[in-house]
This record gives sequence, structure tokens and C-alpha cells, in this order.
Amino acid sequence: MRPIYLDNNATTRVDPEVVQAMLPFFADQFGNPSSAHAFGASVGAAVKKARRQLQALIGAAFDDEITFTSGGTESDNTAILSALEAMPNSTEIVTSAVEHPAVLTLCAHLEKTRRVKVHRIPVDRLGRLDLDAYIAALTPHVAIVSIMWANNETGVIFPVAKLAELAKEVGALFHTDAVQAVGKLPMDIKSTAIDMLSFSGHKLHGPKGIGALYVKRGVPFRSLIKGGHQEHGRRAGTENTPGIVGLGKATELAMKFMDDMTTRVKSLRDRLEGGILQRIPDTCVTGDPLERLPNTANISFEHVEGDGIPLLLSRVGIACSSGSACSSGSLEPSHVLSAMKTPHQAVRFSFARDNGEADVDRVFEVMPAILAKLRSAPGRRSADDVQSNSCLSRSRTGCHS
Amino acid sequence: MRPIYLDNNATTRVDPEVVQAMLPFFADQFGNPSSAHAFGASVGAAVKKARRQLQALIGAAFDDEITFTSGGTESDNTAILSALEAMPNSTEIVTSAVEHPAVLTLCAHLEKTRRVKVHRIPVDRLGRLDLDAYIAALTPHVAIVSIMWANNETGVIFPVAKLAELAKEVGALFHTDAVQAVGKLPMDIKSTAIDMLSFSGHKLHGPKGIGALYVKRGVPFRSLIKGGHQEHGRRAGTENTPGIVGLGKATELAMKFMDDMTTRVKSLRDRLEGGILQRIPDTCVTGDPLERLPNTANISFEHVEGDGIPLLLSRVGIACSSGSACSSGSLEPSHVLSAMKTPHQAVRFSFARDNGEADVDRVFEVMPAILAKLRSAPGRRSADDVQSNSCLSRSRTGCHS
Repeated sequence: MRPIYLDNNATTRVDPEVVQAMLPFFADQFGNPSSAHAFGASVGAAVKKARRQLQALIGAAFDDEITFTSGGTESDNTAILSALEAMPNSTEIVTSAVEHPAVLTLCAHLEKTRRVKVHRIPVDRLGRLDLDAYIAALTPHVAIVSIMWANNETGVIFPVAKLAELAKEVGALFHTDAVQAVGKLPMDIKSTAIDMLSFSGHKLHGPKGIGALYVKRGVPFRSLIKGGHQEHGRRAGTENTPGIVGLGKATELAMKFMDDMTTRVKSLRDRLEGGILQRIPDTCVTGDPLERLPNTANISFEHVEGDGIPLLLSRVGIACSSGSACSSGSLEPSHVLSAMKTPHQAVRFSFARDNGEADVDRVFEVMPAILAKLRSAPGRRSADDVQSNSCLSRSRTGCHS
Repeated sequence: MRPIYLDNNATTRVDPEVVQAMLPFFADQFGNPSSAHAFGASVGAAVKKARRQLQALIGAAFDDEITFTSGGTESDNTAILSALEAMPNSTEIVTSAVEHPAVLTLCAHLEKTRRVKVHRIPVDRLGRLDLDAYIAALTPHVAIVSIMWANNETGVIFPVAKLAELAKEVGALFHTDAVQAVGKLPMDIKSTAIDMLSFSGHKLHGPKGIGALYVKRGVPFRSLIKGGHQEHGRRAGTENTPGIVGLGKATELAMKFMDDMTTRVKSLRDRLEGGILQRIPDTCVTGDPLERLPNTANISFEHVEGDGIPLLLSRVGIACSSGSACSSGSLEPSHVLSAMKTPHQAVRFSFARDNGEADVDRVFEVMPAILAKLRSAPGRRSADDVQSNSCLSRSRTGCHS
């Protein structure tokens, strides 16, 4: 049976058109764009084209606001470290409790090794940022705010444009990890007060190993990786030209498929959620019902321990991932669901344009037996042990027990 | 006429076998190696295989001593910053005056922004490290020595095994930027005292955007890019699996072609040098005659201004690069040739396994006319203005004037 991939927030299949666009840059137009001879010049033009494709997707005012990096993690690290270096008199960072490890691990490290104070703004049971806590944390001591555009586990969207305006009022820079949002939501970054934005190729059917950092013109910037003059002096190292060209093509395709993402893909996701809640008792959909990515379903299953559902789904050829808040066993709890105080085993299904109705049908086909098996396992918690108010919508008996 | 590429120290053509090895990892085996499901698992095995291929090429004792990075610059930055963080009581760096900007730019930045003292060991007119100055700089204050294995402009090889032994005596870590050496010289890193070694995919017919850092087991290490647990916690960010697989294949091919590099490619280089010196008066080959990469020719031309030779060669379809020590006009002088006190216009021809005799013949064909044109240009310096003792071998009238 054809494997079904519903883990597109982890990574995506590279679009064949992207691969085709990259191919000439391996063995044919392989020059170093920094070289003065003809082998270099043609490649330089391709890099320029890609920069404009990225500019178009996020709605940047200028193509030189785009710096290519090795991916989302490097972009996130660069943005935060740049702000601290550029604003040596501001020693505080404001972030959320549900950021990606690319932000949270760095923040924890900075707190431990430098005199940096980190404010981790909590979220409510629907994963929404505590706006009062956010406003309270904003003072002139803050060098940078780093709040994600959309959460990778739940798909919950934060009001980054508004948050950036508030940050601006106290003179802080505003960075957003938009790795999950770019290509899934229309953007017009130039109309916002967002200073820096990170994204990644492999989350939008582009290649792995390439990403970008948007830095608004005029924003003070210090490079992380130092050496040659590449990327206008903002990121040293020979340019990954096939990756850059591939990311350019991927962003062009993301614009083309934006309507598909916000309509057809969204309806697949909605059908999956509705169908599971209808078929499986004691389940609920996690996250803000109003502000959510169109492709992400995070579903909590009561009375299930550990990582069982993704494991059994994998055995029948369906790839998804856990967003487990389980605190027993060897599995680390999801910091996102913990912050939302969701105590259940959760499963993330994340869709993309290469998914279809048959994928959803197949999940419906196998889920009842998997749940029956896991819920009959000895040692599982009884229904009375758990309670949750973090559900967007609930199955017939779910979360009321 | 077929373009001729003699700029392989800048970047190389990706071997078609490397491209073939990478291809399945874009649209077929595209999983995230960190994912628990089947899409992730198969990719994890491919990453493991590549790590072993790199281990074999450099002769590392263990495959977990290899960390994949985005390239040579990131590897160099990581090694130096790691040492400073791991050894907070040692605040000095020893390096050479002829390192790549990936080392020198970072060192200059550290000198300016942190209380770090940098010793830049000079070289002589043949590009050889001043060993007395090196030994004098080694004190217990030194956190790390970073000396390249072979120079990118001249190909001069430094005695890194010996230098590492000396560094060890004062408790300093020893890092080498081996970007130009890996794949051109046989290596057995486990038999040396070298602690860290950087290299890059695109210098050995692998893809751009991927490189590696070797860190000997037991060497204290701090990651540069922080986030997820990838690469044994040493380098966060979703693994660039096509790049990793491509670099693995490239290292396997580099081992296979090592004899070709040290015999046939070397003889091409030697024939080019001999032929130019025979045909063009007032020329000399720069660099240590005994310890040099087999593929690199750095040739100085008296009575030529600026970047003229590479430019005119480019117009007839031959790619090479300047290593100009020119201090007039808009060109920046080469810091390498300046350190060697070579005042002439120099040209670097760098060969690879895809070059042949016809490429050398073509250079011989066009060079006399190019030199005649440039040397007849008004405003050029007279032969009496220049002197050089930095020549490995000289043309009939060259450098004696």
C-alpha cells in the first residue's frame, strides 16, 4: 500500500519542479558566484532571481532585505544574537513558552552564560499568547522580541503584526520565526513593524539545508557566521547556489498554490478532524479555533499512553507525529502542550498540497482499531484521571468526562 | 570553444555520481531523520553511511567525530568559538597571516569585541610559516591554534601534525582549516594531535552548502548553532540530507581519485608551470617548492597591472583567478601574497580530475598574446621597479632583473 505522509510540518517532499530548477547548478552552472569569470557571473544572476522570488512571497519592500542562510535554526539564532550585539545596553529577550527549540535552547543558553534575562510569555489552554503578560514584559531593557508566527505543533497563529507594533513602542526589535507560516499564509511584511523574519526551504517543498532571514532595511544587524563578503556581508561562506535556486522556485510555487493551501488543503484537514471526532470517542482538537494554520490538526486522545498512535500508524504506512504531553515513561513531554496544560496524548497530522481525500479516508479506516487496541492496553489511565479545557472541538464523549 | 575551468580551488563541478546519489533524497526519501516513522528512519541510515565515508577519507578513529555543517566557514567559526567558550581562562588565539577570511575575519572581530589577543604568525617569501614566531606565541594563555593545512592561493602546505604537537605542549587546542587539503592529500587524522579539522563539500566535487567539522573524541566542544538535538547535539537544524549524502559520495570518490590527484593532475599542473615559464619572460612560480598541493599553480607576472590576466583569459573561455598583490587601482591586494612580500600580479590556476592536457595546451596558446597586450599597456611599471625572492622557479629573465 502506498505510504501516506501527513507530517508536513516536520518536512515536505521537494517539489519535482524545484529539483529540476536546481539540477543545472550542480554540474553545469557550478561556478562560485564570487568568482569574476563567466562561470561565476551566470550563477550570480540566478541568486539574484531567487532573492526576488523570496521577496515576493513574504511581501518585502526590497530584495536586499533577504539573506540566505542554512535554514530556520541558523536564521533564528542569527536574529537573536544580532540584536543582543547591536544593542549592548539592552539585555532582555521576550519570547513565548511555545517557541521552537531554535529559539528556546538559545535563550536558555544565553540566560546561563551571559547576563541576559529571558521573559517566556505563557499561553492559555487554546495556545493563545497571554497579551497582558506580553505587555508587562515590554520595557526599554528589551533588545529583541522573538515570537513565532505560527506554532509547529498546534498551528496556532500569533498576532505578530500587533505584537511587533507593541515592541516598537519600547524600542525593541521584533523577530518572528515564520518557518511554519511562510507558504501557508499570505504575507505582506513591508506593511508591518516586523524587523526580522526566519524561514526555511524544506517546510515548503524546497530543499533542506537552505533558509532565509529577512532583515528590514535600517535594522541594525551583526552577522553570526563571519568570513567572506557573501550575502552583502551578512552571512559568510560560499553560497549554496543549487539550494538558493531551489528555495526560489519553491517560494514561487508556494505563491501559486496559496489558494490550494487555504481552501482544498484546509478542507482536507477539517474533514480529518471532524471524522476522527465523529468516529473516536474521548478526542478533541487542540488549539485556537479562529487563528490556526490551514494544514495542521493537533488531536488529543484521552486514555492513551505514550507515543502509541504515531507508532501504530507508522506500521500501516501513515506518517504523522506525536505532540505528546505525556510525562510518564521515557518520552519527553511536548513543551507546547505542557504550556497549554493539555495532559493527553496528542497526534499532529500536517497536510500539504500533495495530500488528497484518499489519505484522509485511509486514516479513518485504521484509527478505530488502533484506538481500540491502545485503550484496551493494561495500565492506561482511567477516564476520570484526565480533564482538559484546551479543546477547540470535541468528540461526543471527549473531554466532558 | 569549450570553456576551460582552472579555478577548482574556488569551487568544483559536482561529480555526476554525486548528483545521482543525492537525487533520491529530494522527492523520494525526503523524510526528516529526526522523525520516528519510516520516512525518517531510512534517511537516518543514509546519514550514518555518509558519516562513515567522511571518517574514512580523513582517517578519523570514530564516525561520531564527524559533525555536518553548512560548509567550511561555519566549521571554522564553530571550532574557534567553541574553544574560547570551552576554555574561558584562555583568551589568546594563534593563527597565521595567510588564513582564509573565515578565520581571519572572525579573529579580527573577536579582537575588537572581546578581550581576545590574536597572534598572526608571519610567513616567509616562500609562504612557509615562521616556526620560531609560532613557538614564541605558544603559551598557556592560548585557547586555540587555527592554522590551515594548505593555503588556498598558493597551495603551500603547513606542517600541521608538527604544529599540533607543539600546541598540545602548552595545553592549547589545535584546529586546522583543511578545506583545500581534504581530497588532495592522503590523511590519517587519528595518528595526529589535531583536535579539530574543517572541510567543505564543494571543494571536492561535492555540493555547496554542506561541510563538516571533525572533533576528536574527548575534546571539549560547544555548539555554535543551538536548537534541536541533531548531530549528537553539536549542530542544531534539520539535517541537509541530500547534501550529506552527496558529501559522503564525494569523499568516497576523492579516495578513489587520490592517486589521480597526486600523479596525473600534479603533472598537468607541473607542465603548465614549466610551459608558462618557458614561454613568458619575467614570470615565476610562487610558494614552497617542496610542500605544495598537487593541483595549485600560483604564477607571478612582472610588468602587469591589476586583474588583467584572469580577465582576458575569461574572455577566451578560461576560468582562473587572481591572487593579486597589486596595491594600486581598485583591487584589494591579496593578503596572502602581501604576507609573502610578492609585489607582482599573480594568477592562480587550480586543477581537478576533470582537467586534461588540452586545457594546458589552450593556456599555452593564448598566454603569449595576452601578456604582450598587457605588458604593452601604458602606465605599467618598469622591470626595474620590482623585485621578488618569493619564487619557487623562474622564467629565463624573470625575477633576476
